[in-house]
Amino acid sequence: MRVMGVDPGLTRCGLGAVEGRPGAPLTLVSVGVVRTGADEELGARLVGIEAGIEQWLDDIRPDAVAVERVFSQHNVRTVMGTAQAAGIAVLCAARRGLPVALHTPSEVKAAITGSGTADKKQIGAMVTRLLRLTEMPKPADAADALALAICHIWRGGAQHRLAAALAKATRKDVRR
Amino acid sequence: MRVMGVDPGLTRCGLGAVEGRPGAPLTLVSVGVVRTGADEELGARLVGIEAGIEQWLDDIRPDAVAVERVFSQHNVRTVMGTAQAAGIAVLCAARRGLPVALHTPSEVKAAITGSGTADKKQIGAMVTRLLRLTEMPKPADAADALALAICHIWRGGAQHRLAAALAKATRKDVRR
Repeated sequence: MRVMGVDPGLTRCGLGAVEGRPGAPLTLVSVGVVRTGADEELGARLVGIEAGIEQWLDDIRPDAVAVERVFSQHNVRTVMGTAQAAGIAVLCAARRGLPVALHTPSEVKAAITGSGTADKKQIGAMVTRLLRLTEMPKPADAADALALAICHIWRGGAQHRLAAALAKATRKDVRR
Repeated sequence: MRVMGVDPGLTRCGLGAVEGRPGAPLTLVSVGVVRTGADEELGARLVGIEAGIEQWLDDIRPDAVAVERVFSQHNVRTVMGTAQAAGIAVLCAARRGLPVALHTPSEVKAAITGSGTADKKQIGAMVTRLLRLTEMPKPADAADALALAICHIWRGGAQHRLAAALAKATRKDVRR
């Protein structure tokens, strides 16, 4: 399964694609950042984000897209732009009929480090280890996008195993 | 000048187009609402909003688009969806190279009623009077979209008059 993670933002929108399945080694597909200038008009920035994400979707051809869920408790000065960048990522994926999942920052942290309150450095270190990279992906937004993709692969897997176990248990019940 | 106003929202996105210029009677071009279901996935809702706005832009061919500026102080439960719907309106307009303006709710209220704290009923009454309609546009989101368009026509006009006056004053200075 190939998952593209999006850490949304207007100034830096982190993008990271990972291939893998639960219980098997993960592979880095691509990592990067779409940037727009703080001096540009909002419309031009959103068009830039859309073009960057579209290019990635064309190149990477992911099976699913995982986007960070934005809360209004975030940095009030930037939260609206962050929500709008996230909305465009969701829009681009949905237009192609790709499944989209929203994961909260603490879900991602817990999936990657075991702790929902891990800091950026810890996330970066675990992403580096899990993808067997020689150095930490930079900037932090790029590492966070990879963490989102890994979280999605693992959570999806856990949900599939749970569903499979339930289906098996149900079949047993029926046989009795 | 033909302006399309957008009162953003996921459940109801108000759209209203007005033709006019400062100091002349205003004309209603079109008014309506794009709706998406609260039970739909976010991606499907954003795709629906985009399709609705694109259809309007194709039909109405506005000279400019005015979108309500969303603040994080708004209703916390819905503010992220509102910001995302606003972002899509800005994106659609900017993709076509149309000028986009963001007006705050109090700017709109002050422009239409003379008071930055006017209520929805007062806005609806003034929109009805200014456009010489026989009844108030419904729902309130549709009336708010018309108010945004009117605010933009008038504010743009005031800015043009100011720029013209300044240019005239500068020419006089040069002549002296």
